[in-house]
Amino acid sequence: MRPYILISNDDGVSARGINFLIDVLRPYADILVVAPDGPRSGGSCAITSTVPLRYTLLRKEEGLEVYSCSGTPVDCVKVAMNEIVKKVPNLVVGGINHGDNSAVNAHYSGTMGVCYEGAMQGIPSIAYSLDNHSSEADFTPLADAIVTITQKVLAEGMPEFSCLNVNFPQGREFKGIKVCRMTKSRWTKETKACVHPTTGKLYVWLVGNRENLEPEQTDTDIWAMEHGYVAVVPVTLDCTDYELLKTLSF
Amino acid sequence: MRPYILISNDDGVSARGINFLIDVLRPYADILVVAPDGPRSGGSCAITSTVPLRYTLLRKEEGLEVYSCSGTPVDCVKVAMNEIVKKVPNLVVGGINHGDNSAVNAHYSGTMGVCYEGAMQGIPSIAYSLDNHSSEADFTPLADAIVTITQKVLAEGMPEFSCLNVNFPQGREFKGIKVCRMTKSRWTKETKACVHPTTGKLYVWLVGNRENLEPEQTDTDIWAMEHGYVAVVPVTLDCTDYELLKTLSF
Repeated sequence: MRPYILISNDDGVSARGINFLIDVLRPYADILVVAPDGPRSGGSCAITSTVPLRYTLLRKEEGLEVYSCSGTPVDCVKVAMNEIVKKVPNLVVGGINHGDNSAVNAHYSGTMGVCYEGAMQGIPSIAYSLDNHSSEADFTPLADAIVTITQKVLAEGMPEFSCLNVNFPQGREFKGIKVCRMTKSRWTKETKACVHPTTGKLYVWLVGNRENLEPEQTDTDIWAMEHGYVAVVPVTLDCTDYELLKTLSF
Repeated sequence: MRPYILISNDDGVSARGINFLIDVLRPYADILVVAPDGPRSGGSCAITSTVPLRYTLLRKEEGLEVYSCSGTPVDCVKVAMNEIVKKVPNLVVGGINHGDNSAVNAHYSGTMGVCYEGAMQGIPSIAYSLDNHSSEADFTPLADAIVTITQKVLAEGMPEFSCLNVNFPQGREFKGIKVCRMTKSRWTKETKACVHPTTGKLYVWLVGNRENLEPEQTDTDIWAMEHGYVAVVPVTLDCTDYELLKTLSF
């Protein structure tokens, strides 16, 4: 029986990253794509409650169906699971994101939103991202590692409420696949204020630099990527701080 | 020196919950409010990258400034921290949310987005939510516990990258404040499909029921709320699955 994979992303259904991912995984599985009808970068786990959602079949071929959806990345997974799938997918995949989702970026990422939501639905889930925001980024060097990681998760599954955040550095070759932890990091200088040319009113763009708060630590995802590895962080949906839980009282 | 507290939410600056919170905390601290100009429920940690953000001073009194912002809850914190604050706040507070943000709801919650973002900025942070979606919900029973929890965090701080998710059950009295872990849970039957009256086209609303996957466990936030306690879950920004990290390899 061929595996059945649900794919979504946050760059939108026409982004090169998701279409490369479809091409890479199609030989190994039947594919259902339900992805946003435009960019939803930074969509996190946001859901849409104030307006209704719409979805449209764009493409139907042997072993492939592609839908666009008006909602967020998480909405796409919920709509797919509740309205479109004909059986429970074996895997949910987010990406390939145009941009790095390592370290704290994972919290803001709509690609990770897809992955979180897949895990929330009880399905093994993976997010793939490339540290290159260019719409012309070359995804071809990622193919082998994506097949390796995807096949392993399809074969072995994932613990309940866990998922994988996979980030690729730039480059044509990687030193290997390194399992690591999320780097303690922080964004700084996050706004750029501008003045509107005619109204004279202030507006603000989100910008910023990510600061690595533990640059010497070799077991982190930022370290792995800076040293040419594909960084795989196992992520849990249980965000309880068990250390603090031991001592906190009121 | 009076503490300085940054408050935001996801129900919007005019919601009753946030205005009750301002009234409760104002005797104890100088308050800066930067909150969305309308509802952003389900906003999670989403950030806005495709359009610029705007913010407007609505109210300025002794010890209180209130701004509305065109962005998401997390955008509000970023704009506040980078454009508005005159010193680093001692505390970031999200809420009071009109609706329950316990268990997996925390992942979708914009109120928790505020709290996560405060912790991301290195500031002790708390999210307060009431299990009542009504715009007429009575927040007065929450005041004492909010003062207790807020004062404790102001006095003792929080470990870096940790924050608190505080959820109140409905009712006039609580049995106490219970520190607990996030309940393993899942949303099911999450969509309601409708037909547009004139176009005949399908559209979908997000709905659903939350299923408690461990109803017998007494150390969870859902159990605490169902038994009349204020549920306090210590939350970490480090979403690494350390159990899986021990065994995962490629």
